Amino acid sequence: MKRIHLNGFKIAGVGHTAIGLWRHPDNQAWRYKTLEYWIETAKTLEAGKFDSLFMADFSGIADVYGGNADAAFREAIHLPLNDPMLAISAMAAATSHLGFGLTVATTYEQPYSFARRMTTLDHLTNGRIGWNIVTSAVGSAARNLGYDHQVPHDERYAMADEFMDVVYKLWEGSWQDDAVVMDRERNVFIEPRKVHALQHEGKYYRVLDAFMCEPSPQRTPALFQAGASDKGKAFAARHAEAVFLVNPNVPGLRRTVDEIRQLTAQAGRDPRAVKIMAGISVIVAPTDKEAQEKAADQMRFISLTGTLARQASLMQLDFSKMDLDRPLEYIETDGIRSAMERFTRNDPERTWTPRQVAETMSRSAGGITIIGSPATVADQMEELLERADLDGFNINDHMPLRTLPDFVELVVPELQQRGRVWRAYEGSTLRESITGQPGPRLDARHYGAGFRKP
Amino acid sequence: MKRIHLNGFKIAGVGHTAIGLWRHPDNQAWRYKTLEYWIETAKTLEAGKFDSLFMADFSGIADVYGGNADAAFREAIHLPLNDPMLAISAMAAATSHLGFGLTVATTYEQPYSFARRMTTLDHLTNGRIGWNIVTSAVGSAARNLGYDHQVPHDERYAMADEFMDVVYKLWEGSWQDDAVVMDRERNVFIEPRKVHALQHEGKYYRVLDAFMCEPSPQRTPALFQAGASDKGKAFAARHAEAVFLVNPNVPGLRRTVDEIRQLTAQAGRDPRAVKIMAGISVIVAPTDKEAQEKAADQMRFISLTGTLARQASLMQLDFSKMDLDRPLEYIETDGIRSAMERFTRNDPERTWTPRQVAETMSRSAGGITIIGSPATVADQMEELLERADLDGFNINDHMPLRTLPDFVELVVPELQQRGRVWRAYEGSTLRESITGQPGPRLDARHYGAGFRKP
Repeated sequence: MKRIHLNGFKIAGVGHTAIGLWRHPDNQAWRYKTLEYWIETAKTLEAGKFDSLFMADFSGIADVYGGNADAAFREAIHLPLNDPMLAISAMAAATSHLGFGLTVATTYEQPYSFARRMTTLDHLTNGRIGWNIVTSAVGSAARNLGYDHQVPHDERYAMADEFMDVVYKLWEGSWQDDAVVMDRERNVFIEPRKVHALQHEGKYYRVLDAFMCEPSPQRTPALFQAGASDKGKAFAARHAEAVFLVNPNVPGLRRTVDEIRQLTAQAGRDPRAVKIMAGISVIVAPTDKEAQEKAADQMRFISLTGTLARQASLMQLDFSKMDLDRPLEYIETDGIRSAMERFTRNDPERTWTPRQVAETMSRSAGGITIIGSPATVADQMEELLERADLDGFNINDHMPLRTLPDFVELVVPELQQRGRVWRAYEGSTLRESITGQPGPRLDARHYGAGFRKP
Repeated sequence: MKRIHLNGFKIAGVGHTAIGLWRHPDNQAWRYKTLEYWIETAKTLEAGKFDSLFMADFSGIADVYGGNADAAFREAIHLPLNDPMLAISAMAAATSHLGFGLTVATTYEQPYSFARRMTTLDHLTNGRIGWNIVTSAVGSAARNLGYDHQVPHDERYAMADEFMDVVYKLWEGSWQDDAVVMDRERNVFIEPRKVHALQHEGKYYRVLDAFMCEPSPQRTPALFQAGASDKGKAFAARHAEAVFLVNPNVPGLRRTVDEIRQLTAQAGRDPRAVKIMAGISVIVAPTDKEAQEKAADQMRFISLTGTLARQASLMQLDFSKMDLDRPLEYIETDGIRSAMERFTRNDPERTWTPRQVAETMSRSAGGITIIGSPATVADQMEELLERADLDGFNINDHMPLRTLPDFVELVVPELQQRGRVWRAYEGSTLRESITGQPGPRLDARHYGAGFRKP
């Protein structure tokens, strides 16, 4: 029986996928500012034997809709938004096995400082850190982070390719395993000849010296990837150990899964080495009827305008200037083809209007929405797993401090009984949870392992 | 009776000030990689009613001595070095009043991302974050963080001036206090007209949009400054709420204190509004004799070569190429005048050789070293406070998990009995602890308060 990998999916802010749901009287998303909120969330996920808490992030403001940020502020679309990295050590201190996946865009980082932050977290968590590698299509990020214009999609991926080489050199190549000797007699803490300067001078990055950090348990964090564009899939095939997909259309989802497995094999890796997780939302109650009532009670708060404004930012298309009832043709915009494809190409027999897109999205609390009793939810998760050839799920935390505890209390025991969710963590690092293989380090056949020193 | 402000002084690594001391059999600095180490340290400081844990940091490798990094690796000089920001939330969860000061160089940060990180920490700690503003003279940083050459000292301060304006706009000016309304009826989480875009286009930084984070308890973190160059002192007079000085020469220390108070008054602020802390090391035991024995047991591990190599990096002068016994003339190097001044100008009647500098430094565990019984240590701290007109101390943690517990167990009760250390925190934020004034926000007369929206 194939194990189902579970991950919680959140942002360090209020409105994530189910825009408008903050108005539900029981919604506690506004407590994102407190440590108690994060510690409670982490403990819940560990009780449910989740692989990780997977943190989304956005580098800029959703200001495409109407050409300004008013809707984003009013409807709390990815706003307010704190940095997701900073609550991790508090959550790590309250847990022992739960991993933490962080979304960070390469485009706006210095690889040297970024690598140091990830290594520090990997040390402090004892090897429980993952990185969701993105390049960020948000125009607002460019306007606030030092670029005159948004970096074009293909160039962002060229930058990301070089960025990856630099961080592999830092994480895998700079310090040998036995560099730290702590030899008191000889007064040698670190053996200088076992630490290597990078001397990296590329097109986008220049890093000459050795890394400042000693190797952490995983060295390279567990690598996630979430882009489903052609460049994104090729990038995933080379780098990702887990891929996160959001697609409400199951045949479309399956097509992307197949492509990624094929590309992974072409890249010389085991096509099953990449674990594929789909984004879902779950509304569960003891009976199907109660679950449907609970769903109705929640979904009535989802805002159509807010959903449109969020999609406008994700697709970088201003829906406020478009006829909402005119079918969308295939639209080639910079880097967001894949988002559009979900609606226009995955189901070739139908075309979609912007209103239909928004209505479909607003009937979901994020990704494919599953509503029902524990048995119904487990059935549907199993069916989805098989139909789309998935390895697991990222479960959207649409009602913080309620959605995930409900899932852990009601669905996890059902899935455990079916042999689908493990009863105890088998490894101690996030990489071991994700890959199911022993050992905290990158597989020897992984591209990043090529940067190791003999 | 003037209260003495206490702060712990550390790096997120092994060798900080007392190079070589890692060889002491009881030295636990190597445990810096674990959360337990940080949580234990924070609990100790809070038990001693310290204002803060003050974290030093270095953006690059100490590779001046001998023209390479061998000594830095061998003797663990600021190496290995993790990012100090990432253990804070774990420490904050284990404490309730202790503040956390972070050294971050403006030169290598994007102000928008940096401001977001600090605001996030200020939220999660409930207003307990401070920032030690530096510009970083370490050449290695430039070579790894995107610059072709080290940015010259005066230009670094010009960049820092603009950087400060940008972060004040983000922290003080972008979101009004009442921007977050959470009005469920009107579907308004944030009132758009109460959030202001920066439209900042300066010489070094371009930040056009509004901030992504809602205001944190302190908004601007408590501001520390540590540079004692002329530019540094002027910068402190404008921005700093606390200044941290290291000078083994007490009359020299006093001279710098007087200058800073005078410049602060000239900047239109209360000259006492800037709290001045000096770096000290304390070795305490129940009796003077035991303390002297303990000091001898520790100081024998301090390495002369390691101390020279560390000074070489701090001063950016390669002592390995100099005659160790030829007196140093006044040496004008970029931005490190002040470090040299400690030895060449503070005591105008003597000149110093590199060997004398290193020997003096190696007789200290960091800053002015005080050795004795609790009463002796308290006497000397009080005397130093008066002679140099200080407000408090940064106490170097030269023997981690031993130095600070000893101080808290033996010296703090003595100082409390003398009315010099408070028995309970009076405010809840770091700013309140540092300034002694009620209220978590910047004083209305502070330069940064000028960026507030009416």
